[in-house]
Amino acid sequence: MKSKLLLALIATATVTTAHAQVKVEDAIKWRQSAYATMGWSMSRIKANIDGTYNKDDVIKAANVIQAIANSGMGALYVPGSDKGKGWVDTRVQPALFTDGPKVGKIAGDFNAAANELAKVAATGNAGAVKDAFGKLGGTCKSCHDDYRTKQ
Amino acid sequence: MKSKLLLALIATATVTTAHAQVKVEDAIKWRQSAYATMGWSMSRIKANIDGTYNKDDVIKAANVIQAIANSGMGALYVPGSDKGKGWVDTRVQPALFTDGPKVGKIAGDFNAAANELAKVAATGNAGAVKDAFGKLGGTCKSCHDDYRTKQ
Repeated sequence: MKSKLLLALIATATVTTAHAQVKVEDAIKWRQSAYATMGWSMSRIKANIDGTYNKDDVIKAANVIQAIANSGMGALYVPGSDKGKGWVDTRVQPALFTDGPKVGKIAGDFNAAANELAKVAATGNAGAVKDAFGKLGGTCKSCHDDYRTKQ
Repeated sequence: MKSKLLLALIATATVTTAHAQVKVEDAIKWRQSAYATMGWSMSRIKANIDGTYNKDDVIKAANVIQAIANSGMGALYVPGSDKGKGWVDTRVQPALFTDGPKVGKIAGDFNAAANELAKVAATGNAGAVKDAFGKLGGTCKSCHDDYRTKQ
């Protein structure tokens, strides 16, 4: 009951914020877009790690990931958006909406890894970027494994 | 002929970068995603301007726009991506690929406006954010008017 009360309080609080008007289809489209934008950035960084390393290119990509990771994407998981279509049908598992502490831990790890990647990208140390990139990818995977429907 | 030569040189240079492997469909999907992510951020800022102003919320949204604006999205306009499908069919007008100087001016104005918005967002001055938001929106519109097919 405690977690249900907490969810009810969060839901109530959400209604009072600027996010109150977000429609389910917009929320799903925006989160699909944000993940795809991070996917682009990850592919750019991987291409730099695997090929010729360009410091500025990696910084730009890492900054995009960092800004999105810290944007408060949780607000896009509006009630009712466990099903529905943005660009395409959402692949989110309903458990993401109820596994509060576990999801919070994954989200925190993801944010920390994104901040670390941006930090090391700024130094231009390709080895450190490779490590940070791997750690960030691990946090993506941990969420996909548990909360994204396989294709 | 001069501009054709320049475009040829740019195209050649692109082939030698990490972006060489970007497929047309990925490029279109990623740029549609990046614009939609900025659209989400713009809607968040508008909601803050029109409703209760939350400084941190606006900073987060402005940082996303700034990072994407500075990410080098031009690399996603790969040869052949004047037509094709990402999430949906691209609405880009072929002229965007040939109006080099004009497109460059719009892109520069857009970047400057995005940087200014992030700068004033950090101060928490709602009036300055409203002005900067309006200017940024104007740069979006100028590109849409000339280079995006109407729906």
